[in-house]
Amino acid sequence: MKLLFIGDIVGSVGRDALKKTLPYLKQKYTPDFIVVNGENAAAGKGITPEIAKSFYDWGVDCITLGNHSWDKKEIFDYIEDEPRMIRPANFPEGTPGRGYTIIKKGGKELAVINIQGRTFLPPLDCPFQKVNHIIEELPLKLKCIFVDFHAEATSEKIAMGWHLDGRASAVVGTHTHVQTHDETILPSGTAYVTDVGMVGSKEGVLGMERTAVLRKFMTQLPVRFNADTGKWHLHGVYIEMDDASGKATKIRLLRHYEDEVRFD
Amino acid sequence: MKLLFIGDIVGSVGRDALKKTLPYLKQKYTPDFIVVNGENAAAGKGITPEIAKSFYDWGVDCITLGNHSWDKKEIFDYIEDEPRMIRPANFPEGTPGRGYTIIKKGGKELAVINIQGRTFLPPLDCPFQKVNHIIEELPLKLKCIFVDFHAEATSEKIAMGWHLDGRASAVVGTHTHVQTHDETILPSGTAYVTDVGMVGSKEGVLGMERTAVLRKFMTQLPVRFNADTGKWHLHGVYIEMDDASGKATKIRLLRHYEDEVRFD
Amino acid sequence: MKLLFIGDIVGSVGRDALKKTLPYLKQKYTPDFIVVNGENAAAGKGITPEIAKSFYDWGVDCITLGNHSWDKKEIFDYIEDEPRMIRPANFPEGTPGRGYTIIKKGGKELAVINIQGRTFLPPLDCPFQKVNHIIEELPLKLKCIFVDFHAEATSEKIAMGWHLDGRASAVVGTHTHVQTHDETILPSGTAYVTDVGMVGSKEGVLGMERTAVLRKFMTQLPVRFNADTGKWHLHGVYIEMDDASGKATKIRLLRHYEDEVRFD
Amino acid sequence: MKLLFIGDIVGSVGRDALKKTLPYLKQKYTPDFIVVNGENAAAGKGITPEIAKSFYDWGVDCITLGNHSWDKKEIFDYIEDEPRMIRPANFPEGTPGRGYTIIKKGGKELAVINIQGRTFLPPLDCPFQKVNHIIEELPLKLKCIFVDFHAEATSEKIAMGWHLDGRASAVVGTHTHVQTHDETILPSGTAYVTDVGMVGSKEGVLGMERTAVLRKFMTQLPVRFNADTGKWHLHGVYIEMDDASGKATKIRLLRHYEDEVRFD
Ligand SMILES: [Fe+2]
Ligand SMILES: [Fe+2]
Ligand SMILES: [Fe+2]
Ligand SMILES: [Fe+2]
Ligand SMILES: [Fe+2]
Ligand SMILES: [Fe+2]
Ligand SMILES: [Fe+2]
Ligand SMILES: [Fe+2]
Repeated sequence: MKLLFIGDIVGSVGRDALKKTLPYLKQKYTPDFIVVNGENAAAGKGITPEIAKSFYDWGVDCITLGNHSWDKKEIFDYIEDEPRMIRPANFPEGTPGRGYTIIKKGGKELAVINIQGRTFLPPLDCPFQKVNHIIEELPLKLKCIFVDFHAEATSEKIAMGWHLDGRASAVVGTHTHVQTHDETILPSGTAYVTDVGMVGSKEGVLGMERTAVLRKFMTQLPVRFNADTGKWHLHGVYIEMDDASGKATKIRLLRHYEDEVRFD
Repeated sequence: MKLLFIGDIVGSVGRDALKKTLPYLKQKYTPDFIVVNGENAAAGKGITPEIAKSFYDWGVDCITLGNHSWDKKEIFDYIEDEPRMIRPANFPEGTPGRGYTIIKKGGKELAVINIQGRTFLPPLDCPFQKVNHIIEELPLKLKCIFVDFHAEATSEKIAMGWHLDGRASAVVGTHTHVQTHDETILPSGTAYVTDVGMVGSKEGVLGMERTAVLRKFMTQLPVRFNADTGKWHLHGVYIEMDDASGKATKIRLLRHYEDEVRFD
Repeated sequence: MKLLFIGDIVGSVGRDALKKTLPYLKQKYTPDFIVVNGENAAAGKGITPEIAKSFYDWGVDCITLGNHSWDKKEIFDYIEDEPRMIRPANFPEGTPGRGYTIIKKGGKELAVINIQGRTFLPPLDCPFQKVNHIIEELPLKLKCIFVDFHAEATSEKIAMGWHLDGRASAVVGTHTHVQTHDETILPSGTAYVTDVGMVGSKEGVLGMERTAVLRKFMTQLPVRFNADTGKWHLHGVYIEMDDASGKATKIRLLRHYEDEVRFD
Repeated sequence: MKLLFIGDIVGSVGRDALKKTLPYLKQKYTPDFIVVNGENAAAGKGITPEIAKSFYDWGVDCITLGNHSWDKKEIFDYIEDEPRMIRPANFPEGTPGRGYTIIKKGGKELAVINIQGRTFLPPLDCPFQKVNHIIEELPLKLKCIFVDFHAEATSEKIAMGWHLDGRASAVVGTHTHVQTHDETILPSGTAYVTDVGMVGSKEGVLGMERTAVLRKFMTQLPVRFNADTGKWHLHGVYIEMDDASGKATKIRLLRHYEDEVRFD
């Protein structure tokens, strides 16, 4: 199975970058599934049903989220009825939507799990225990399991990689918006990278206007953050897994720039 | 000017990796200066004068530190008299040691500044203002300025890159122990990468034993952390700057593995 | 000198409580000066010039603020020209307004200093060093010095009490909105209490609607917080100081309830 | 039922204060049960079996703990077999010991629950949900329920009071070591106070040596904290409940000083 996962898409610049780059990526990698993290798709804060629909139209099979899941109110109802959108599984019981889903296409099926870290982030249920419960719940015959671990601290993310090594096909981090250069296949067959990085303006800070972010750090005064409109960069990861065993066989980082059209 | 900067060296595995790799790196890059971050050199926590001396013996020109600067008591006296070791400059006035230094060799000179972030870290003085003051203090004729920004949050690090773009030759992050894949030269000539990554066991979590780290996340009980003894990986960055202007002209990530001896 | 200090006034319920209770308090305590913390006066978030003016009309001599200082935009201009309103002094240099002021009435004068803690709060300049600098700046003949230390952690607040013992007439905490039962005069003559408590609905949580706060803790979802409209309680502190030495001679807690009209 | 609850006992000064004051308190209040928080009893960090046994000898019926529960290793085994010692119930499943207990004496029985907050504290399971589960597990005929909520933030503690109003006889906070002046009986019959305060040196900071704490705040360098040896203060709360309904009928703050021997 071939999987393309693309990191946090930030604002309209990020959405445009995704739209323009997806045809090229599909042609190059012929992925069985495309998954994207959409928590910042709406101006940096949350996602709307309309944006989600456009992602599906462009070929996205599943959208994961994170701490910004709930920034747009329309998502509360939408997420209840849309099996292709998941939010972190370790929100408390009773939270709208689901924390994992099984997507199927062309005779293949993939479990996608979204889970959120707690270090430097709000206190959800234990991600390490929650992901254990989900994996136990999954049908035994389902071998290919992809985990988007939305977390801040490198220690928590790497620990999750080891935690799931041999039990998930891939554990891939999101949330810091900066791609890390540590893609690897762990000893028991789990593809791992600490963060896939973002899609959006590379002239801002994490996709937001840099003058506002700098003003915040310099003054500690309230500042309004808007998505930046500079030239984009796009980050993701390409993963191959063995369908029979679910073991990862390849992981490659994707990094593309608008101005260089350095399509790899 | 050619500069080699190598990230947080963790424990004896990290020190061994540095010792074994430096001859190769010197031959390959013929750097004018070699700088390393040593805050985790002593079993993951701090650094001793003996370790520092061995680093100088191997060809290191300057050691930067971070939040672990003070973990070994012997360093308090040592740092007062050793101009080749610096600790974050934004510790309060009166803190032992210095926050920047000027190193000279072969007719070249380089200012090295160490500064620490405050997001998810203890409340030091403002790093953005402190670094401004230091740059103003430096002799005008000194063009090549290297900044090790020891910080957790990607937002704060990228903001520092923009803050210093055109005023420092390079702004390079440390502390998260995971190399990021965003090395770039910013528009006004500052080489930047969010984190250079670490040197030490790649079989642990940030260089420490993974079973202990996982136990901590799973149980929230007190756990003793020791440096891991697995095979190493080594991360750093190679930077070229124009001596006359101080502008960066090249930045390359270094990533080497013990078992692959993939010296490239 | 007799001083009445009243803690964080929250929303319209808090303002009404202040208005109704001040005549009684003035008659009972005949204070030389009345100081109030106004950071939550406007619906729980910040303060407006209009609200400030009404406070002055009712007999308030000085308004202190805190981490909510800047929630209402109108305050940025207003605070520049209003010497009777101060914000935490350890915001970065260049922040609008002032961090301390000297108020005079009936031949008496009092320095009022506002300072903010950093534990569990944003990273401002060091409050312990900043308050030292301010006290050094004050005219030597000015003996009566009141400090509103707006901070979260009991350790930081008590440490500030000891830090200033003998140098300030009173160190009084705000921000947690709950009055503490540890009013004392420290050995060198500084009146101290960890927190004076708030003014506003006692049926909410810190003056805000309790259903919203509980929903936040239970769900970790975004929740809109509004000031509660329940019956009020009012908390403050009454302090006497010796004009010649600036030493405190008395400190009494004030706690009043709307429904009990238990005016003492 | 008459209950005496005494807050965090810090070090040998705190233990001595407890030993000396208990006879007086027993005589004055004739409590059916005495419960103390012991998380800081051993030099400020944790508790040993020996200390616990001395507390039982002096008449303590149950010991609650908190974030310092595990600072002394001997406690891991001891807590498994000692039903009179409980640790926060919302530690992960599998944690040694229990989170609540039922103590019986003279024909009366009391459930004691220990729970820990998450705001500004490590990420345990949700305290609001965990306490719900415990209360559902308790036998219906058991009416008197005492909750020690070990938490930092006033908002979380007050929210817990409202959460349990009418379902617990008393919700009493610990951890900040400073007694709050907000003791009340909530509308549905739950006695509440945000923090009962500590027992130990009143000349330190939260019972620890003040010079060390101040040095930490001023320098941000590593500092060793020891329990202070100054004169003590003792804080607690006296609560009466109706045995048939479990509703609280009275709550009184206790505050005693060594030097004033102001036994009330
Ligand atoms: Fe994101
Ligand atoms: Fe995020
Ligand atoms: Fe480090
Ligand atoms: Fe560090
Ligand atoms: Fe505040
Ligand atoms: Fe407030
Ligand atoms: Fe405690
Ligand atoms: Fe505690």
